Amino acid sequence: MTPSQALPAVLDRIDAELDNSLERLFEFLRIESISTDPAYAGQCKAAAEYIAKDLASIGFAPQLRPTGGHPVVIATGGEKKNGAPHVLFYGHYDVQPVDPLDQWETPPFSPRMATLPDGRKIIVARGACDDKGQVMTFVEACRAFKAVTGSLPLPITMMIEGEEECGSEHLFGFVKDNAEEFKLDLALVCDTGMWNGETPSVTTSLRGLVYEEVRLRAADRDLHSGLFGGAAANPIRVLARIMADMHDDNGRITIPGFYDGVAELPADIKADLAGLGLTAEQFLGQVGLKLPAGEKDRLVIEQTTTRPTAEFNGIFGGYTGEGAKTVIPGEAMVKVSFRLVGDQDPNKIRDAFHAFVRARVPADCSVSFKSYGNAPALQLPFDNPSLGKARTALAEEWGKKAVTVGAGGSIPIVGDFKRVLNMDTIMVGFALDDDRVHSPNEKFDLKSFHKGTRSWARILAALAE
Amino acid sequence: MTPSQALPAVLDRIDAELDNSLERLFEFLRIESISTDPAYAGQCKAAAEYIAKDLASIGFAPQLRPTGGHPVVIATGGEKKNGAPHVLFYGHYDVQPVDPLDQWETPPFSPRMATLPDGRKIIVARGACDDKGQVMTFVEACRAFKAVTGSLPLPITMMIEGEEECGSEHLFGFVKDNAEEFKLDLALVCDTGMWNGETPSVTTSLRGLVYEEVRLRAADRDLHSGLFGGAAANPIRVLARIMADMHDDNGRITIPGFYDGVAELPADIKADLAGLGLTAEQFLGQVGLKLPAGEKDRLVIEQTTTRPTAEFNGIFGGYTGEGAKTVIPGEAMVKVSFRLVGDQDPNKIRDAFHAFVRARVPADCSVSFKSYGNAPALQLPFDNPSLGKARTALAEEWGKKAVTVGAGGSIPIVGDFKRVLNMDTIMVGFALDDDRVHSPNEKFDLKSFHKGTRSWARILAALAE
Repeated sequence: MTPSQALPAVLDRIDAELDNSLERLFEFLRIESISTDPAYAGQCKAAAEYIAKDLASIGFAPQLRPTGGHPVVIATGGEKKNGAPHVLFYGHYDVQPVDPLDQWETPPFSPRMATLPDGRKIIVARGACDDKGQVMTFVEACRAFKAVTGSLPLPITMMIEGEEECGSEHLFGFVKDNAEEFKLDLALVCDTGMWNGETPSVTTSLRGLVYEEVRLRAADRDLHSGLFGGAAANPIRVLARIMADMHDDNGRITIPGFYDGVAELPADIKADLAGLGLTAEQFLGQVGLKLPAGEKDRLVIEQTTTRPTAEFNGIFGGYTGEGAKTVIPGEAMVKVSFRLVGDQDPNKIRDAFHAFVRARVPADCSVSFKSYGNAPALQLPFDNPSLGKARTALAEEWGKKAVTVGAGGSIPIVGDFKRVLNMDTIMVGFALDDDRVHSPNEKFDLKSFHKGTRSWARILAALAE
Repeated sequence: MTPSQALPAVLDRIDAELDNSLERLFEFLRIESISTDPAYAGQCKAAAEYIAKDLASIGFAPQLRPTGGHPVVIATGGEKKNGAPHVLFYGHYDVQPVDPLDQWETPPFSPRMATLPDGRKIIVARGACDDKGQVMTFVEACRAFKAVTGSLPLPITMMIEGEEECGSEHLFGFVKDNAEEFKLDLALVCDTGMWNGETPSVTTSLRGLVYEEVRLRAADRDLHSGLFGGAAANPIRVLARIMADMHDDNGRITIPGFYDGVAELPADIKADLAGLGLTAEQFLGQVGLKLPAGEKDRLVIEQTTTRPTAEFNGIFGGYTGEGAKTVIPGEAMVKVSFRLVGDQDPNKIRDAFHAFVRARVPADCSVSFKSYGNAPALQLPFDNPSLGKARTALAEEWGKKAVTVGAGGSIPIVGDFKRVLNMDTIMVGFALDDDRVHSPNEKFDLKSFHKGTRSWARILAALAE
């Protein structure tokens, strides 16, 4: 029996097992695996052990592999046959801190079911979505295959790490040191979202990042504006002029060479995005805005996912307390970040930005830079055959075409899967925009959990063909 | 013996008393009378009591008059005779905060003498110049008259307030409520500077001030730039654009109607200013700058004294700590001040500024303003006879013609002396550009203190004729 032939029975098994699946997820959610706080190191180890033991129960051979921080769970299972790809599944067992605790309606590590006013059933707990709930959709799909067919549908290496929420610091070296072991055919990640509650999606690009802090120094001390105002360079004014110059009236970034390596989307993909009919009111309305502030000739979804951006993340200078102080500060500072796409070169962008700023600094002022981030964007080739299989499988489960989207943020290790292991990643996830990931009262829709599990069963069957 | 006849002996007395004068000043400087910080209210009261007691010792009748804030010291002395004017001397006993404290070479309230590399002897302390040192030049001149002649040379009312450094908020009402008491013949103020170390000056105009805080709100919460970057309005970017728009490429302020009421200087006065030969390198070099940042077709001395300006005094928004945070803030704030000249109307300027900002705020953002200052400019008539007497007296002391200048800053109450009391003010002061007023290591030249005291003795004698 091929995995595809087994699929109907596997899906039935998932449906029948739902309550047991939830019980296993709840046990996982009760473990307080906050990775960033050393006080929770024991709980992080407990979460690793829990998931390792669970994977052992469905035919995987798990190991807790040490790193400089929390251990990585590596578990192998399935057999190579019929040219099916060997896939690497990546997820994480660690969760974000829970503060402010008083904003949780119930304790964050006491998972519970609840019902929203619109009737949706939800799982509420820290990690319900990010990433324990999402990881378990994949694990439960594997479990159903094992139960129905006696084996996994294809060779799978699980990599469940414990430091995603604090930057995956130790995972980079771990992957690099064990490149031969993890250089497989394809990576799968379940840590992204759906387009909306009805429309599945595959994340095919991650924007890169260049993050710079700019310090503009004018006079060698703070000045009294009554004495020097009008004649002395004001670093806030100099910065404002530079910042205003960075976008033209159409919202386009004016730094020379900035758009080098930014390709237009294929026409069919762009048509897909336009077909979603996302309006600025819908997207921005949830945060009290309505007018898109990016490039004027672009869809809102392009502005946030497939186009590069320049944002000011922080600014400081002069007197900012209560009341009036007529000071002209000696120095002012701004933090600027660029989200990159396509083949934009982060080093070239950083250098072009520095040159752009320097060209606008008066000769009697000086500027210094600190670089805090420098990562290229990542793009899954649209012609990767696994992408087509995943989209078809998702469409069969949800009854709607699966859109391909770009993610504005980044999942750090996925870049290394490409650059270090030369392996593409298919990112499929079932989070919704209202899941309050990283916030109090984090939740995961029961529908996301259940149909997410079914989705993975379908994707695994398709990939095994 | 007339005051003029007594003058030589008075000047000798000042010279002989210099060390004792310094001792009294040092005692005054040791009092930590930081008016803006409520923690120092007791020290402010102590400073008021110190100066009241000192004035009592030289024949004044002092009172500590309560206000809604720190008390005002009012002290009357001298007798009306021979048509000599009754003068009101205004100064302040409060000082600026001392932060950043770590940039002081010695504690700010432990006054000391020091010698600069060029040989100048200086008094170092917070308030050494602004305004305790300057106030004491006048007090010591009175003391010398009292010692030599047994009385003050003319009727004097002292008004030494304690809130100049935080806007003189309560003094306005106090002066208005007691208008009959303070409506005298002439006001004298010692809170301004010399043209340079050799050239005395009388300040004949004060720039007015409009001070506004602008809060720009975009989204109703801070946003993750990975999710919303590119589409959501960034309030720092909106502010930067507005701020950059406020000056054109020639440094001229672009707010419509801003220059209404700004007259060109009379040709002879402008020629006098040009004749001073002040270069940008000279003026700005002392603070590490060299390029004038104001209107391109104006002398530096015009930019700082006779032309209106717009300055950014403080800005804040988003993440300003160490490192990187990819936030798009919901709100950003900037403090903007305008120095006014001639007949510019502060209310019209404020309204025009509000309209200028509002016209540039995207429809889904909002802006709010706080007004912290609103005072018109002030001009002393060049034909006031006391101005001529003061200039002659100064020329006799310093051996150089006393120039008439405009002050870039403003002394809030002087406007009310004119508008409420219909009284002209002669502003004579001995501060130098390198006194680091409001900054760490504030100093006052010993020469300024000593010859300043002698200058006041000469001016008082001249006015008493």
